Amino acid sequence: MIGPEIERLISLLAKLPGLGPRSARRAVLHLVKNRDQLLTPLSDALQAAASTVTICSTCGNVDSTNPCGICADERRDGSRICVVQDVADLWALERAHAFVGRYHVLGGTLSALDGVGPDDLAIPELVARVRSTGVTEVILALNATVDGQTTAHYISDRMTGSGVDVSRLAHGVPVGGELDYLDDGTLTAALKARRPV
Amino acid sequence: MIGPEIERLISLLAKLPGLGPRSARRAVLHLVKNRDQLLTPLSDALQAAASTVTICSTCGNVDSTNPCGICADERRDGSRICVVQDVADLWALERAHAFVGRYHVLGGTLSALDGVGPDDLAIPELVARVRSTGVTEVILALNATVDGQTTAHYISDRMTGSGVDVSRLAHGVPVGGELDYLDDGTLTAALKARRPV
Repeated sequence: MIGPEIERLISLLAKLPGLGPRSARRAVLHLVKNRDQLLTPLSDALQAAASTVTICSTCGNVDSTNPCGICADERRDGSRICVVQDVADLWALERAHAFVGRYHVLGGTLSALDGVGPDDLAIPELVARVRSTGVTEVILALNATVDGQTTAHYISDRMTGSGVDVSRLAHGVPVGGELDYLDDGTLTAALKARRPV
Repeated sequence: MIGPEIERLISLLAKLPGLGPRSARRAVLHLVKNRDQLLTPLSDALQAAASTVTICSTCGNVDSTNPCGICADERRDGSRICVVQDVADLWALERAHAFVGRYHVLGGTLSALDGVGPDDLAIPELVARVRSTGVTEVILALNATVDGQTTAHYISDRMTGSGVDVSRLAHGVPVGGELDYLDDGTLTAALKARRPV
């Protein structure tokens, strides 16, 4: 006999990716035991997020303002757009501090199997954005999977004639990676794209 | 550049057991994408929990009332106390609907290595509870680990002379388990404790 408040909390937490019923129960006990350090702050943070977090209508990023901090930042290079599949990929690129342009979140990849077409993704918005603003380069930072590369090809086709440069991320040996552990496809790609020292 | 509200939510969620920074980010994106189905209800549930959930001063259970629903339930057999290490174990026994008595949560096990002595656990409270109320049986439902069994022995020693029966959970083959996969200790225990058919 567990109280209804706790049951409800467990069943909601169990819906998060990476948590199941057992780990949700552990999480709830951990929360209850650390009320001041964790339960109350998390409750406040979720409430703040629920009331402020929104999706940027320009690029699809998740932020507490619309346009998001990146689209609103005048110091960023608006002529380069980095196209990503998901907000998580945008966050990964931001953590790397590798890019000073703006982003465009597609919200998925084309997939014939799952019936995802161009209009289900933010591809029309991307085309309109490239046409209307002074974009000179579109960088396709999509996953190196079949669906990701299909999507990259499709977008690249749609961009022909628009006068913008379209590029994609390089394939190659991950920095810090060992050749012996790499798959054949990556090794072949790295060898083909070899650079003069 | 991720907004401060989102950063804060990620860093708090990453403190939950079973979640790290990466899965916390995935969880936050999942929450934001499912605002009405998940983010708002979870925020409400956490707030309800933060304001109501408390620890039962009799048994140590986590509930929204004190005494907890189990201690307050007059239909439960107050003469039997099942001693568990943690609230998670109490919940596991309750899910099995196997016990109609009351509980006592120790909050850990004795451990010489970690410097946990009897007074760091709810053992004095257990002794007082057994003395003052009409308890006739104490069931030690502790983990079958070294620390768990040490704690069980210690409590059983403390109960001698108090006139209550002290028992422990049976060791044996798990229901549905296959002998071939069982460890030697369990098989030996199951054989020793064999029952007439």
